[in-house]
Amino acid sequence: MSPLVAHRLQHLPISSIRKLIPLSDKAEQDGVKIYHLNMGQPDVKTPQVMIDALKAWDTNPIAYAPSGGTKEYIDALKQYYHSLGFNTIETKDILGTVAGSEAINMAMYATCDVGDEMLVFEPFYSTYKTSAKLWNVNLVAVPTMLENGFHLPPKEEIIRSITPKTKAILYSNPGNPTGTVYTKEEVKMLVTIAKEHNLYLISDEVYREYSFVDKPHESILQYLQDIPEQAILIDSLSKRYNLCGARLGALISKNADVIKGSLAFAMSRLSGGIIDMHVGAQLTKVPAGYIPALQQEYKRRRDTLYEGLKEIEGVIVAQPEGAFYIMAQLPVEDAEQFCIWLLEKFRDNNETVMLAPGYGFYADPEKGKQMVRLAYVLEVPQLKRSVELLKKALQQYR
Amino acid sequence: MSPLVAHRLQHLPISSIRKLIPLSDKAEQDGVKIYHLNMGQPDVKTPQVMIDALKAWDTNPIAYAPSGGTKEYIDALKQYYHSLGFNTIETKDILGTVAGSEAINMAMYATCDVGDEMLVFEPFYSTYKTSAKLWNVNLVAVPTMLENGFHLPPKEEIIRSITPKTKAILYSNPGNPTGTVYTKEEVKMLVTIAKEHNLYLISDEVYREYSFVDKPHESILQYLQDIPEQAILIDSLSKRYNLCGARLGALISKNADVIKGSLAFAMSRLSGGIIDMHVGAQLTKVPAGYIPALQQEYKRRRDTLYEGLKEIEGVIVAQPEGAFYIMAQLPVEDAEQFCIWLLEKFRDNNETVMLAPGYGFYADPEKGKQMVRLAYVLEVPQLKRSVELLKKALQQYR
Repeated sequence: MSPLVAHRLQHLPISSIRKLIPLSDKAEQDGVKIYHLNMGQPDVKTPQVMIDALKAWDTNPIAYAPSGGTKEYIDALKQYYHSLGFNTIETKDILGTVAGSEAINMAMYATCDVGDEMLVFEPFYSTYKTSAKLWNVNLVAVPTMLENGFHLPPKEEIIRSITPKTKAILYSNPGNPTGTVYTKEEVKMLVTIAKEHNLYLISDEVYREYSFVDKPHESILQYLQDIPEQAILIDSLSKRYNLCGARLGALISKNADVIKGSLAFAMSRLSGGIIDMHVGAQLTKVPAGYIPALQQEYKRRRDTLYEGLKEIEGVIVAQPEGAFYIMAQLPVEDAEQFCIWLLEKFRDNNETVMLAPGYGFYADPEKGKQMVRLAYVLEVPQLKRSVELLKKALQQYR
Repeated sequence: MSPLVAHRLQHLPISSIRKLIPLSDKAEQDGVKIYHLNMGQPDVKTPQVMIDALKAWDTNPIAYAPSGGTKEYIDALKQYYHSLGFNTIETKDILGTVAGSEAINMAMYATCDVGDEMLVFEPFYSTYKTSAKLWNVNLVAVPTMLENGFHLPPKEEIIRSITPKTKAILYSNPGNPTGTVYTKEEVKMLVTIAKEHNLYLISDEVYREYSFVDKPHESILQYLQDIPEQAILIDSLSKRYNLCGARLGALISKNADVIKGSLAFAMSRLSGGIIDMHVGAQLTKVPAGYIPALQQEYKRRRDTLYEGLKEIEGVIVAQPEGAFYIMAQLPVEDAEQFCIWLLEKFRDNNETVMLAPGYGFYADPEKGKQMVRLAYVLEVPQLKRSVELLKKALQQYR
């Protein structure tokens, strides 16, 4: 039996982030305090109005939801997009998904056939890779560089990677794992390329609110009229409202066939979680100050971590402009081995720090071998201590 | 753009059950009362202890769960299987899934490659079809007959459908949509075939508790020691605890590679719903009388619906032995058209009845053209009225 499954395992490698978890569990069982910068799991509180909605749950039995989401959830999403100024979004353009990860799966499924290609900008969110493997879609990676903050290369360089099999461009903005916020010119360039080469343009904007640049975030939703058949938005409530464990996302498109294809996928799992959707639907009642307070908090954290990392000898970083990640190049040969060593061996006052190995964010793992991703999802004093730990560890490791 | 997506749509047809929902919505908006026998959405209450767990939720933020499920949820599942006498099931054998539908997806993904074949017994649960289409797995349908209650054909007939591409046999027991409960001899035969032909044997037992035959339910879990590498259980809490909208399921296997392959899939969606899992984990606290009361209630309903249908001229039914479905052959040429007519045209005292067209449960839709599936998820008086409506409708339709 096993050869078949072995093929699958090779096909779909265990997440580079999640595979270290048993090691951190072990260390924590041994009483070691770990500073978790390895996952995008914020420490910030879910809005109380959402918790209260759970406590007030009074529907029994807990019945199936419509495959595309409850009316309550879809209406709340529509209201949210309208509040951002995207008034042309209608109910029919919104599909409720089981978090952003399902929206990614659906977008790939609805736009690409087996063997088709999708352009991504490397380093890219590792889930794109697992998702592409599921559907036998080939990700074609266009490299971006730490030296210029992982911003997009010139148009010619992107176009060079387009083949007759290319069906879509997929990007995250603000970027995971880079923290890069694309400029108006960059997004416009992608729209132009999509138009000229007849490609879907899939924008993952789950970190929309986490931008620390002066200019407004450039959403694909501004281009819905421009490329109505091609623009697809991936969205999620996980980071915006600190709801990672309630699986709440959305796929937005003006292309009825993309919605239908995604809905067909949604029907294969019958229903999303109706309790989660009720929680998510409270988003319209979240106090107005919730998001601005988060923005300020993350900016402080970004500054703390960036300034701290910059001072460590041999560490190379660019200042992230958004999201809550930093990609850093470490003065080590194999960053994954270093991450393992941090968990298994390194202790300072019985504390250590956990990072995500960077190779998982590269199509070619070799390229990301010296890289790590740090998520600044801890408070400033903890981030300061994390930097201190990393500095000591690097001194000791060499 | 559209041709690509059109291909997908053709590839993955909209659920035959769910596509009628807009018509029933319309009728209900017009004030028509509809008796819903079309979906396996029970009217029975979720155990109060589960609702109470929601109300007592006090974890904030709502954080990611481990991809394979929370410890609390997995421990509760283990305790449940042990209470059934399956004491050899260990934590490592259990993967928590986002409902039974995801467990089906995972089992297919972990056992079959693109182009591989899986045997199913026709009529079969329509979600198997959508799931197989997702993974480009070919379902090979072995026919079973209404005349003998949809029980399995002789071994030779099943073996005849096995090819070098066959990787697995997938069946539901008790059966959806047939209500058939396989005998000890039938399950043993499937185990023997799996052994002799080196196939995975995937048993969907989400209706385990709903059996109205005198003998105990024959679970694949009894054969875990016999075919440890091949036996896979699909399970779900949806029907057992009336939790369809909380997405809670499990995949059980002694084959570490099957668990790993399924976990890789689970990692692509990062996490299931942590609130739902907390609700599901209360299963160990559900009062002992909950399930037996359900069994009695469903037996009464089964009897009501079966006896009623038998009396309608031209309707052919077999007595279902379990689950909560009846497959019936109607004296109409095209049962889907009849189902549409029921929703759009037929009214008796401004009431009508909604059924699931049967073709969705057949690999060859032509074979199921005269069939419908009725779910007895309403109380006895409502089922009586449903039968009356169906009888009148058939008289009028002809």
